[in-house]
Amino acid sequence: MTIYRHFYVKSHAKTTPDINLKDLPGSAGRLDVIARCINAAFWLSYGIRRDVVFHTILHGEPNPPVYIRMEGEKLRKVSPDERNIAIFIKKALERMKEDKEIESTPGIFVSKKSFQELLEENKDKDFYLLDENGESIEKVEISSKPFFFLGDYKDLEEKEKELLYDYGAQPVSVGKNSYLSSHCIIIINWWLDRKGF
Amino acid sequence: MTIYRHFYVKSHAKTTPDINLKDLPGSAGRLDVIARCINAAFWLSYGIRRDVVFHTILHGEPNPPVYIRMEGEKLRKVSPDERNIAIFIKKALERMKEDKEIESTPGIFVSKKSFQELLEENKDKDFYLLDENGESIEKVEISSKPFFFLGDYKDLEEKEKELLYDYGAQPVSVGKNSYLSSHCIIIINWWLDRKGF
Repeated sequence: MTIYRHFYVKSHAKTTPDINLKDLPGSAGRLDVIARCINAAFWLSYGIRRDVVFHTILHGEPNPPVYIRMEGEKLRKVSPDERNIAIFIKKALERMKEDKEIESTPGIFVSKKSFQELLEENKDKDFYLLDENGESIEKVEISSKPFFFLGDYKDLEEKEKELLYDYGAQPVSVGKNSYLSSHCIIIINWWLDRKGF
Repeated sequence: MTIYRHFYVKSHAKTTPDINLKDLPGSAGRLDVIARCINAAFWLSYGIRRDVVFHTILHGEPNPPVYIRMEGEKLRKVSPDERNIAIFIKKALERMKEDKEIESTPGIFVSKKSFQELLEENKDKDFYLLDENGESIEKVEISSKPFFFLGDYKDLEEKEKELLYDYGAQPVSVGKNSYLSSHCIIIINWWLDRKGF
């Protein structure tokens, strides 16, 4: 049985396809951060991890929230560099429908969805909130339905954390340093590999 | 006493400043890979690791080898995104002199230098070659002068590995999976943090 690894990273990226690919860190709302998180979640040197599902909700103007989900089993054509990943997010924003989820390109799904709706839909999984004050990931018995939640360059808001705790989330830490979100994902993936997931 | 962490990643990037920033993975010779390795080596969420020195030698046409060294203690102004890091490599190539090393921008040094010369200059350090068949990094007693060597999207050549072994390099592995070089660097940095380096 495949154990799927779910990651959610909150994004402050803008919610219009009018993205300047020369300025991902600036006018695009740190879209570079999400692109690196997607690289971190999926890529191995010989291909991509088919057992990963990556979720983000873009919170930037003018049309938040936009929910994007990438399923490793179906993902095709995307390259691991930031610019290419950003192009696929741009395509998702171009093709999004207001009233239903669509698959904008193979393995990439886009819709209007709030954080609460996302949690409700995934409540069959076990939620882990990355938090420097949480228990070390080395000591936590990770479940067979893990779903990890991270901020981008900003931490999650208190009300989002409270909602996660309402859904039974456990705070976990990857160490004393404050690592980039993309680096946390790489460490988690490596740790799960090491544990034989 | 500060323990410095040295990383070398071989690059196949081109050796002219005529770099198309829209095509880092293609015509620039996978400059995106080196950019992500530099991100992996230096960045924490609140700043950069001052104890890291990153080395690369660009082997692409038309003017190889070009040696670039980045010193965390002196590095300034660089942002963590691929495009920005590539711009600083472009500046290094623009400002390079054939006959001496120069500091092209704060903390970035560029010169003509071969792999053998690099090893000779750094033989006071302990060399570790990343190799899937090496001993697990978890079992190796890492020295206080570590210098890790990796390929980019291509493995190091046999003659480069032999040279490393001549200099006493030890093969080390981060696991059974074949990880991207940038991901290996993040795992090594995390492991060294965890060991209290």
